[in-house]
Amino acid sequence: MKINTIIGKKDFIEYLRGKSATFILSLSSTKTDEIDGLSQAGIPGKLYLTPTLDAEFLAIEEVRSMPQIASTPNNVPTPALISRAIHKLAPFKNLEFLDLGVEVKPKIDYFKIFDFGINRSGDITKGAGIEAESIFQKGVEFGKNYKTNSDYVILAETIPSGTTTAYATAKALGYDVDNKFSSSYKDAPNTLKKEVVNRAINNLNSKELFDILAQVSDNMIIFNAGLILGFAYHKTPLILAGGTQMAAVLLTVNSILKEMKADFDSSFLALSTTKWVAKDRNSDIKSLLEMLDFEINAYYSDFDFSTSNHPALKLYDEGEAKEGVGAGGALVYGAINGIDKINIIKEIEKFLH
Amino acid sequence: MKINTIIGKKDFIEYLRGKSATFILSLSSTKTDEIDGLSQAGIPGKLYLTPTLDAEFLAIEEVRSMPQIASTPNNVPTPALISRAIHKLAPFKNLEFLDLGVEVKPKIDYFKIFDFGINRSGDITKGAGIEAESIFQKGVEFGKNYKTNSDYVILAETIPSGTTTAYATAKALGYDVDNKFSSSYKDAPNTLKKEVVNRAINNLNSKELFDILAQVSDNMIIFNAGLILGFAYHKTPLILAGGTQMAAVLLTVNSILKEMKADFDSSFLALSTTKWVAKDRNSDIKSLLEMLDFEINAYYSDFDFSTSNHPALKLYDEGEAKEGVGAGGALVYGAINGIDKINIIKEIEKFLH
Repeated sequence: MKINTIIGKKDFIEYLRGKSATFILSLSSTKTDEIDGLSQAGIPGKLYLTPTLDAEFLAIEEVRSMPQIASTPNNVPTPALISRAIHKLAPFKNLEFLDLGVEVKPKIDYFKIFDFGINRSGDITKGAGIEAESIFQKGVEFGKNYKTNSDYVILAETIPSGTTTAYATAKALGYDVDNKFSSSYKDAPNTLKKEVVNRAINNLNSKELFDILAQVSDNMIIFNAGLILGFAYHKTPLILAGGTQMAAVLLTVNSILKEMKADFDSSFLALSTTKWVAKDRNSDIKSLLEMLDFEINAYYSDFDFSTSNHPALKLYDEGEAKEGVGAGGALVYGAINGIDKINIIKEIEKFLH
Repeated sequence: MKINTIIGKKDFIEYLRGKSATFILSLSSTKTDEIDGLSQAGIPGKLYLTPTLDAEFLAIEEVRSMPQIASTPNNVPTPALISRAIHKLAPFKNLEFLDLGVEVKPKIDYFKIFDFGINRSGDITKGAGIEAESIFQKGVEFGKNYKTNSDYVILAETIPSGTTTAYATAKALGYDVDNKFSSSYKDAPNTLKKEVVNRAINNLNSKELFDILAQVSDNMIIFNAGLILGFAYHKTPLILAGGTQMAAVLLTVNSILKEMKADFDSSFLALSTTKWVAKDRNSDIKSLLEMLDFEINAYYSDFDFSTSNHPALKLYDEGEAKEGVGAGGALVYGAINGIDKINIIKEIEKFLH
């Protein structure tokens, strides 16, 4: 499996080859996912369950909070399958979970699930109602005090309709990002997305950074922006495992740094995503990353399902789902730990029988 | 390779996926192994050597205390081959040895061999003559003070005729265990075993717990019961790697706890065995574990030799040997470290040329 560089230098990821990683999955949920047709990341009407099911499947290969794993109405299976397959072939040293506001806690024992007393956020067209500054500070504190027995950390997310809140966040912060955010749909509902985002932004009643985040963002973005700045204290290497949503986290960090007029040594930081995001014609992660005032390394693995015959998996190559549950970061981790494409596909196919 | 749950929840073993393990092999010997036809775990007349040879083979893939590795008269090779194969494919972080009374010390340098001044125990039909309370206390102290740089510990055993002393121990402690203990033979010598056990129990001259253990048990069971209670002080995750003998260790712990009227949080504890034990028709490990008053997680991997053509290995699938030298625990460890069946079989076949 090959790793390609989207931006930056390959040295960062090569340095991590063979080192041990902790995989942290942020679970979050926004009522924005109740807007019809915006996201297909889960069971219609029950998208709020997707992060819970993803966490259960990743940890124990079983879903306990629903009779089946999250898949779209078109039967596109969750990218949790990809991350789980990697965890079986070249296990992460630790799997940990951040509860950033889910309705249903994953039913798993032994695993660390960090609880911050954060609630599910609201629909951004009605004002998300997030305690943004407090959640950001919780992220900073967590990141600053975070201790691990592994060499680096992979930070992933699962939050349905997260690309819409990410798009709204970046646009509201003043970045020129129309048509740059990806979607879990092959045929991205761009008109609807733009309309939702514009409606959210038109409702804004403040120009203060944290007021903006409170109204149009989501818990995942705000908390992890804090986490990143917390990690800057000890500089444990950190890979954001995700696509344009993780780019929005970085743009949020960028805006906060500007406001604080703070210096930032980003050398500990990178982003890893899938080929489906990196090559997506309906979005542009590279251009989002180029908007940052600090340097960033970003990668994708060349993994795809071209050698699989499974129709549900082929949908990924056609542009459905694309990324999530850290699939891109897991694949890049797999690549620097000697795992090859054939075996990953074999493992994933086993999940689907 | 798949892991199946015998009892408890899969969460414990999933939590350990990718984490590092120390493999501790308890070496012990009882003169009970001199009863003709009771055990086939080694060279007839020299069964006392088996633990020594197993330790040497596991550590250095060579036997120094005999010209050949331990195998049965039917040429069933020792399960040490399985544990050694796993150690080559996904090495344990540490291999350590407990000398719980062997005649001949393994001839290996560098490796830690803990010496407790324990002698080989006697034939249970004549009173085993074990300093049970002292050995138990040594186990508690060792377990309590045990420090490791790995994430968890796998505790294995090698003691010929150990299923008979295990059966005697559990029965003498008052558990209803007839026909529940396994055997290294495909055609278990049940009549002989029962006769030996009943003879041992009829000779008992006390109803005190440690007197019973002193007369009908073995050093492995008594010491490791203490070790487990010692581990409860720090709760380092501990996997008992073995079949019905390890179940007898747990039943002994259960009896001691009852006598002490002590609470016990067993959440750090599990058992892993082979498919040959888990599916054995002549024994019943699940029902042994169900007799415990505390919760226990127990697993087996679905490893077998069905894809091997080697006649000596096929004997395992027919029911010979079944378990020992931590084979079941090693296989479950292999499964949570990305090792597959084909490669394990390849390694084992190499040992046999």
